[in-house]
Amino acid sequence: MKKVIIDTDTAGDDTIAILTALHNLDVLGITITGGNVDFNQQIDNALYTTQVAGRTDIPVYPGYSSPIFDNTEQEHTTVEDVHGSDGMGDSFFPKPERSAESTHAIDFIIDTINENPGEVSLLAIAPLTNIAMAIKKDPSITDKIEHLYIMGGTNNALGNIVPAAEYNFYVDPEAAKLVLQSGIEMTMVGWDMCTDYSLMFDEEHTEIESFGTAGSQFFKDVNKVVKKFNKEVHKLNGTTHPDTLLVAIAADERIMEKSNKYYVDVETKGELTRGYSLVDINGRLGKEPNVRVCEKVDRDLFKEHLYEVLKAID
Amino acid sequence: MKKVIIDTDTAGDDTIAILTALHNLDVLGITITGGNVDFNQQIDNALYTTQVAGRTDIPVYPGYSSPIFDNTEQEHTTVEDVHGSDGMGDSFFPKPERSAESTHAIDFIIDTINENPGEVSLLAIAPLTNIAMAIKKDPSITDKIEHLYIMGGTNNALGNIVPAAEYNFYVDPEAAKLVLQSGIEMTMVGWDMCTDYSLMFDEEHTEIESFGTAGSQFFKDVNKVVKKFNKEVHKLNGTTHPDTLLVAIAADERIMEKSNKYYVDVETKGELTRGYSLVDINGRLGKEPNVRVCEKVDRDLFKEHLYEVLKAID
Amino acid sequence: MKKVIIDTDTAGDDTIAILTALHNLDVLGITITGGNVDFNQQIDNALYTTQVAGRTDIPVYPGYSSPIFDNTEQEHTTVEDVHGSDGMGDSFFPKPERSAESTHAIDFIIDTINENPGEVSLLAIAPLTNIAMAIKKDPSITDKIEHLYIMGGTNNALGNIVPAAEYNFYVDPEAAKLVLQSGIEMTMVGWDMCTDYSLMFDEEHTEIESFGTAGSQFFKDVNKVVKKFNKEVHKLNGTTHPDTLLVAIAADERIMEKSNKYYVDVETKGELTRGYSLVDINGRLGKEPNVRVCEKVDRDLFKEHLYEVLKAID
Amino acid sequence: MKKVIIDTDTAGDDTIAILTALHNLDVLGITITGGNVDFNQQIDNALYTTQVAGRTDIPVYPGYSSPIFDNTEQEHTTVEDVHGSDGMGDSFFPKPERSAESTHAIDFIIDTINENPGEVSLLAIAPLTNIAMAIKKDPSITDKIEHLYIMGGTNNALGNIVPAAEYNFYVDPEAAKLVLQSGIEMTMVGWDMCTDYSLMFDEEHTEIESFGTAGSQFFKDVNKVVKKFNKEVHKLNGTTHPDTLLVAIAADERIMEKSNKYYVDVETKGELTRGYSLVDINGRLGKEPNVRVCEKVDRDLFKEHLYEVLKAID
Repeated sequence: MKKVIIDTDTAGDDTIAILTALHNLDVLGITITGGNVDFNQQIDNALYTTQVAGRTDIPVYPGYSSPIFDNTEQEHTTVEDVHGSDGMGDSFFPKPERSAESTHAIDFIIDTINENPGEVSLLAIAPLTNIAMAIKKDPSITDKIEHLYIMGGTNNALGNIVPAAEYNFYVDPEAAKLVLQSGIEMTMVGWDMCTDYSLMFDEEHTEIESFGTAGSQFFKDVNKVVKKFNKEVHKLNGTTHPDTLLVAIAADERIMEKSNKYYVDVETKGELTRGYSLVDINGRLGKEPNVRVCEKVDRDLFKEHLYEVLKAID
Repeated sequence: MKKVIIDTDTAGDDTIAILTALHNLDVLGITITGGNVDFNQQIDNALYTTQVAGRTDIPVYPGYSSPIFDNTEQEHTTVEDVHGSDGMGDSFFPKPERSAESTHAIDFIIDTINENPGEVSLLAIAPLTNIAMAIKKDPSITDKIEHLYIMGGTNNALGNIVPAAEYNFYVDPEAAKLVLQSGIEMTMVGWDMCTDYSLMFDEEHTEIESFGTAGSQFFKDVNKVVKKFNKEVHKLNGTTHPDTLLVAIAADERIMEKSNKYYVDVETKGELTRGYSLVDINGRLGKEPNVRVCEKVDRDLFKEHLYEVLKAID
Repeated sequence: MKKVIIDTDTAGDDTIAILTALHNLDVLGITITGGNVDFNQQIDNALYTTQVAGRTDIPVYPGYSSPIFDNTEQEHTTVEDVHGSDGMGDSFFPKPERSAESTHAIDFIIDTINENPGEVSLLAIAPLTNIAMAIKKDPSITDKIEHLYIMGGTNNALGNIVPAAEYNFYVDPEAAKLVLQSGIEMTMVGWDMCTDYSLMFDEEHTEIESFGTAGSQFFKDVNKVVKKFNKEVHKLNGTTHPDTLLVAIAADERIMEKSNKYYVDVETKGELTRGYSLVDINGRLGKEPNVRVCEKVDRDLFKEHLYEVLKAID
Repeated sequence: MKKVIIDTDTAGDDTIAILTALHNLDVLGITITGGNVDFNQQIDNALYTTQVAGRTDIPVYPGYSSPIFDNTEQEHTTVEDVHGSDGMGDSFFPKPERSAESTHAIDFIIDTINENPGEVSLLAIAPLTNIAMAIKKDPSITDKIEHLYIMGGTNNALGNIVPAAEYNFYVDPEAAKLVLQSGIEMTMVGWDMCTDYSLMFDEEHTEIESFGTAGSQFFKDVNKVVKKFNKEVHKLNGTTHPDTLLVAIAADERIMEKSNKYYVDVETKGELTRGYSLVDINGRLGKEPNVRVCEKVDRDLFKEHLYEVLKAID
């Protein structure tokens, strides 16, 4: 099984993505970065999710609790409106049974990569703060990361948190820029892929609930708030699963039906466009492609993976 | 017939748009703004086009030859690669028989609006420099313009001149911002509408040529270079007609099958995103909608209009 | 006598500057630009000032009432706290006896320069909106302006309206940039010159009042509010006369004891530094000098000029 | 003796500053940040300097070799033209006898502060990358740092590396912003203090050489190139000692004859003003003062300290 570290701002779909990773991959650790909701809540959410999966052997490492420049021009935007005040669909699960590690997330990432050169992939389903700070502290790891899978940005399409940008890139565009320009081999699965292919419609929710497993119950619980939010704000009838899609692709690349390598960059200076992801699909800028961008998903295969995970957890 | 002024950086599709306006609308004058190709060439192109239509009674007024800030941080990008070195598909037509007026474009616009309050619409198929400077010189005209139709921007989609932006907004984003925030009643037809609905494919070109009119010959001539360019750069098999689509919609609003009023703004400060058009279709920013945005086009009806114009000119 | 046009946002020291120009120069007209206080009030202030000087033959032309981008990212900051709500030290003078001209300021400037090529100097003691828009509308005048004298910016010193910038550059930095990069022969007298050399101390106010002329009374009136403001905010014991200093220098260059040509530019993009004037006195940027910058003033000679003007008006 | 950590981009005056610290303070360690010259050269320079002082017991910790965003929009500017290609006046000293530590500078800083809460001061004489990254990794240390002394910025005066900015703030403005807004108790000694008070004139160089100590010889060697550079570029007749002044002030606050607490911030977004330090001495922005800013220096006392150090090293 592929060795991976998941970097997550655990709330909502992050949890299902973690379950998917635990089911399919050799998860060396889970690192937490500031994002969706309160940082300590996110740590608890990750710890609780490993319990749901019966995998309390997986260490959880807290990292940066907020974006690189959150105390300056850029305020850190959390999204309790999307995922509930606890980030878990207002399920208010019990406190997890164990605690997080004391080692800092970036030191865990740096040491793990150095000890397993060329063998560890990173699954980034949060703002890229931890990844950026890790490669900034030890630039030598960029060549030793097997592959970096990023859920973030959009490919010339509508954003979510603001019209011009997707949440993970918006929250820490400077981190995204550092990562995109790092030279790491990477794949980006943008928000447009998630709205086009990862949406689980109401009838699919009914189907999932019919599994009657602990996994399907957990899925129902954490998606309660986002289901309502999507209807109201994004006019989407169902729930999106960007993080699960990203992890599923890392586990089974056949899910990514089409992809191409393009030049990708992120805006850090605009007034309306902080976090905008530029994907130069026509090569207008004449720059060297740096990111493999997912352009089409085998939705049936993705759904198969999701269902398998939710059925397996009981 | 609706009274209009066309503001154009006459090259390529601008010419067909002018023919369409002359056929359907009461054109009070044509104003020229810096854009596609050399400014004086653009004046000649507009004058020549009125000759093709047999309408040398229509006055042509030169305006700003370059964007508001072209001599500072922003260089003025022309696109001879798209439209040919003469902006007319390298047709090198003879010099026009008459000259442009000496009155400045913005004074013509201001005076005409003031003399016909509530009666004149503006058809903007170029960078918005002239329109912006006119309303800046006489802000009182904003309430007296009947309607402003803008070909420019995109609705959360890929740009053309750069990935993040459409040409007209890119060339003079400051002008676009002044116009978008002016309070004028306006409609925007973005580049995405043009790639989705205005494309005339190779077989349609063959059909048009079969008309055997002066109009169809002119259409063939001016589209020579852009046809090739679109194949190579935008991977589009045919020619786009953004300006003609804009004018056709102004002449017959039934062509615009779907539209909504949204908050629209333009980025002027970004490193990668100058000229990016923000269209807040989900109302995420909570701002008052200021622009009616075209979202769907009746392609058949548009094509009918285009064919009619090209047949009529003989 | 040197032919000049004064461009002013008439409030406070602008009035004394106008009196100084009328005394020493051939003033062809006064143009008004948005700045210190309400635009119509400024027009009245200019008209009233010509009455004080007994020169109601001098035409006054309203121009742009606000900065180029005042309706967008940049709000127009007026300074009634500095000059009083009427811009005249809360003197509330009677309405002027005549009206302003109907020709727009920039058309007056353009026509006058074109009719007197190489003979007219511009005295800019306001935000540079009118000057920038004039050269943008008719770029050919840049070579025909005899000299442009600018009160604005600072030479690597503290600003006034904000720490990083002087008021005239701050209010319309885009206009300042257009003007500084226009190639016009120009001289800049910055705010640092005004604080270093133009300050009239309390004892000099007493001396001026002792003249007992209409001029000295007017001087007392218009400086009432600014005197208090300077003590409180700028910790300056007296009144500054930036605009009068600028006009005095244009009338008698001996007042400018030291000057050098440097590369000067203005920041338009910063978060803290909009309107910051860069003066590259050590040539660190390697750019061609474009502005003669005043670096030392003969304060006694300046004072002599000021006193002469105030004595003469009776 | 006051416990301190010196953070330095060791070249030129950094070396004399280190000698001054070793003479007067309890130096717990020296941390190296990317700045003046090649990073590894800087490490060697710091190690060599401790040899000159006979203090090879002082550990040296390498930190960030370049600014936070050096691989993106901001290029890292080194200054071999100022300090010589080796940063030591082209003295090409022998390789140091020992190596640097393997612990990362920010981990040394974080651990040391945590182990000695309220007891350790930081002397920052380099770009603020290490300090910013340390407080970002462990925000809890901001309250435990006794005092932070910063050589950087200017107080509304000419910069050095560019007209608008001083080198340390220019190289990593984002780091400077993070530090300035951190809430740490801090003192800033700007470039203006250094040009006004730290300059050692040619005759003082002669005097220093007459000491005939190893210290005076070392001083002569490392200042060879900068002496020439200052004459040519900054028109300064002598050598500036910004870093030594900073350390001397930390060792003996009587040297700082005048200081005030002001609101200080740094520009990160401007086109001309990256690294510009805003010092709001008139409180125009109405923000809470966050930095004690040095405004006057007792030059004689400073010189006394410098001479004492150079005499003592033999």
